[in-house]
Amino acid sequence: MTNTVKPVNVGVVGAGTVGGGTIRILATNADRISERAVPVKVRRIADRRVEVAQALCDELGLDTIVSDDWNDLITDPEIDIVVELVGGKGLARTIVATALKSGKCVVTANKDLIAAYGDELFAIAAEHGTELCFEASVAGGIPIIQVLRESLVGNNFVKIAGILNGTTNYILTKMSEDGLDFATALKMAQELGYAEADPTNDVEGFDAARKVAIMASLAYGCFVSDDKVVVEGISKITAEDIAAAKELGCAIKLLGVARLAEGKLTAQVYPALLDAAHPLAAVRDSYNAVFVHGDAVEKLMLQGRGAGSLPTGSAVVGDIVSAARNIRLGCVGRVACRFDKQLSVLTADAEQGCYFVRLQGADAAVREALVAAGIAVAELRAAANGELLLLTGDMPKTELASALTALIEKQAICGCGTLIRIEKDEN
Amino acid sequence: MTNTVKPVNVGVVGAGTVGGGTIRILATNADRISERAVPVKVRRIADRRVEVAQALCDELGLDTIVSDDWNDLITDPEIDIVVELVGGKGLARTIVATALKSGKCVVTANKDLIAAYGDELFAIAAEHGTELCFEASVAGGIPIIQVLRESLVGNNFVKIAGILNGTTNYILTKMSEDGLDFATALKMAQELGYAEADPTNDVEGFDAARKVAIMASLAYGCFVSDDKVVVEGISKITAEDIAAAKELGCAIKLLGVARLAEGKLTAQVYPALLDAAHPLAAVRDSYNAVFVHGDAVEKLMLQGRGAGSLPTGSAVVGDIVSAARNIRLGCVGRVACRFDKQLSVLTADAEQGCYFVRLQGADAAVREALVAAGIAVAELRAAANGELLLLTGDMPKTELASALTALIEKQAICGCGTLIRIEKDEN
Repeated sequence: MTNTVKPVNVGVVGAGTVGGGTIRILATNADRISERAVPVKVRRIADRRVEVAQALCDELGLDTIVSDDWNDLITDPEIDIVVELVGGKGLARTIVATALKSGKCVVTANKDLIAAYGDELFAIAAEHGTELCFEASVAGGIPIIQVLRESLVGNNFVKIAGILNGTTNYILTKMSEDGLDFATALKMAQELGYAEADPTNDVEGFDAARKVAIMASLAYGCFVSDDKVVVEGISKITAEDIAAAKELGCAIKLLGVARLAEGKLTAQVYPALLDAAHPLAAVRDSYNAVFVHGDAVEKLMLQGRGAGSLPTGSAVVGDIVSAARNIRLGCVGRVACRFDKQLSVLTADAEQGCYFVRLQGADAAVREALVAAGIAVAELRAAANGELLLLTGDMPKTELASALTALIEKQAICGCGTLIRIEKDEN
Repeated sequence: MTNTVKPVNVGVVGAGTVGGGTIRILATNADRISERAVPVKVRRIADRRVEVAQALCDELGLDTIVSDDWNDLITDPEIDIVVELVGGKGLARTIVATALKSGKCVVTANKDLIAAYGDELFAIAAEHGTELCFEASVAGGIPIIQVLRESLVGNNFVKIAGILNGTTNYILTKMSEDGLDFATALKMAQELGYAEADPTNDVEGFDAARKVAIMASLAYGCFVSDDKVVVEGISKITAEDIAAAKELGCAIKLLGVARLAEGKLTAQVYPALLDAAHPLAAVRDSYNAVFVHGDAVEKLMLQGRGAGSLPTGSAVVGDIVSAARNIRLGCVGRVACRFDKQLSVLTADAEQGCYFVRLQGADAAVREALVAAGIAVAELRAAANGELLLLTGDMPKTELASALTALIEKQAICGCGTLIRIEKDEN
C-alpha cells in the first residue's frame, strides 16, 4: 500500500472467530478498502489471549500493538474506532459505553447487547456526537441493517420475516430433505459444530428473538428489547409434521417476524408453514435470509451466511469503513438510530393467526365437532397416512390449543400434531 | 408534518412510471422520511405532459411547481437534488451533466445512460463536488448498488451473477412450469405488459447487459460500457432444452455475469444451467435477483422487484434521502465512484466454460467421436426421450460449436440443442 493518506485507526477488542475474520479482511483486502474509501489500520488489539492475537498479527504481517487490556484502546487518542467483539452483555456493555463516552465510534457484532441495551447505547452515542454500528448483529454477512436504515428509508414496513438462525435452519432442512427426526438432525448439527452442546439458545428461538428485536426496533422506530419477543422454538416439530407439510406443498421454517398492524407491533419467533413458492422456503442448510415487505419496494429478500468468521467479518468491515468515511468527512452519526415512537407490543395471549395442525383419529363428523368447539375451519384435507390436516382461519392460538385439548378429552379426535403458524405473503 | 426543519428540495424531471412512483412515495411517506432522516420536498416537476404531472400533484396534495422545461430545475437555486427520470441517452445526458455542473446532486434510474456514459458523468460529479446516485438503474427495488459500494466494501468480488430482466425470467418460468414454448410464453408476457411489442431488448439480453456493465464497473473499479458485454439471449432456448434441464434437476435462467479471473474481466449475459439447489434457480416469475460471491461474505443473494413504479421509486427515494443526508451534513460525494483500474475485458472469442447440450441421433460410439472431435466430455447421460445429454468440461464455446457442426456433417449425430453454459457455485 503506497497510500500516503493518514489511515483511520481501529482498535479491536476480542480476536476470536469474528474478530479474527475482521482483522484478516482488513489486512488482506487493505488495498481494496483504501482504493474504494479510506485507508484503515488495525492499530491495537485487546484480547486476554495475547499470544493468539499476536500470532494472528504475525501471520498477517501487521505491526498492531497487542495487549490484554481494552482500556488501552480507550486511552489511545490515535484510535478512532473501537470494535467490540467480546460478546455478552456484561463487559461488552461497559466497553461500548466507555468508548462512546470517550468520543470514539463503535462497531459491534453483539446482538445480545443491542437487543437488550440498544436504546441506552444509541442515546449515549447521540449525546457524545459519535456513532454505534451493528450490521453484524443480525444475520451475519447479510447487510439487512443498512438496507432497512438506508436503502429502504422511503418504505413503511408491512412485515419483516427472517430465517435468522442457521442451526435451526440446518436441522429443519435435514428433517425435510432426509426425513430425519428432530433429535437425529440436532445431533448432526452438533457434530458439525453448528449447534452447541446445550442447544437451547438456538432451538428454542432465543437467538432469533434478539435479531427480531433489533429489526423491529429499526423498522418501527420503537425500541423492542428481546424480552418482549414472543418465542416458540422447533423442538416440538416432528418428522410427521414436516412430512404432512410436504404433502401440502409446503415447508416448515423457523421465522422471526416483526409486523405493525392497527398500531400494534408484533415481534415473534415461531415455526411457520410456508408455501414452496415463497422465497423463504428455498433457503436451505445453515443459510439465513430476511424477507422484507415494504409498501414501496414490495417483496425483497436477502439471503446469505448468518455466521462464520469471514462473512460476519465482512459486515463488521462494512461498518468500520462507513464509520471511517464519516470520520474523514466530519459527518459522524450520519444515519441516526431513534426510538421515539411509543407502540404497544403484542403479547403471547393476544397472538392470532391461521394455523396448520395434524389431527389423528378423526372421522367424517369431525368438521362439525371442530366448528362446534369454536375452531375456524378453513380447510380439512386427508393425508396419505389417514390423518386429517386442518388449516384454520384467523384465530387466537390459545383458543385453538384449548379447543383441541377439549376435543381430545371428548374423544372427538385421538390426538394432534404441533400447532404451526401459516405464513401468507401473496405474490 | 409539523417538522420545522427546512426541507431538502427535489426537482423531478419526468413524471412517468418511475417518476410518478417516486413522487408518490415522497408524498405519502413524507413523515416517515422526515423522522428517519431529513424532510424532503418535491419543489418542482418538469414534464412535457404538464397536465399529467399537475393531476398527480393535485391528487397527492402537493404544492409543487409544474412546468414543461427541465431548465427551470437547474436555474432554481432552491433545488438541491435533480432527479432524472426521462430515460434514454440523449436529453438525459444533457440534463444530468448540466445539473451536476450547476452543483446539484443528481439521482437517476437510467441504466442506458450510466452503462454508456457513467465514467464521463461520475468525473463531472467529482469535479463539481457533487454526486450522482443510480441505485434504481440496476434491478429496480433491489438495493444492489449500495450493497456493492458500501456493505461489501471489504470484499474482493469473485463473481456477480444476476437475473436482471424480469420479462425473460417470466418467460423462462412459464416455459419451465407450464411446458410452454418460447413463442407462446413471450406472447403471454406481451399480453401482461411485461414484454414490449418489439421484445428484442429484453429477450436478446441487451437490457441485462447494461445492468451487468454497471455492476462490473462498480465491483472491479474499471469502467465497462455495455458495448463491451458479450451478449446471448433466450430466443433460441426451446421447450426441449428446458425439459432436458429439468431431467438433470436443473433450471435454465438468463444470467448477467461479471467475474475477474487472472486479471481479466468477464462481463456477459447468457442462458445458464443452474442446479435446482442454487439460490438463483428458485427466483420465479418476473422477479430479479443478484447473487454475489465475495471472498469475505461468501454467497449472498438479493431478490426482489426489478421494475415497477413503486419498487423502482423505492430505490430512487433511497438515493434522494442519502443525497439529502449528505447535503445536510456537508459530506456530498461521501461514496465516490472511481474507475482507475485498467483491466482487459474478455471478448466473445475467448469465452470459455462448461456447457450443456442435447444430442440427437447419437449411438453408443458417440463418446469416442466427441472426444476425437476435441470435445471435453465430462458426462453423457441418456434422456427419457432417447436423446443424449452432454455436459462438457471447461472449453471455448466456439470450439464446442464448430466440433458439433462437424459431427453433424459427418452424421455422427443428427443434430443438437442450444449450447447452454453450466453455472457452478459450490455451496
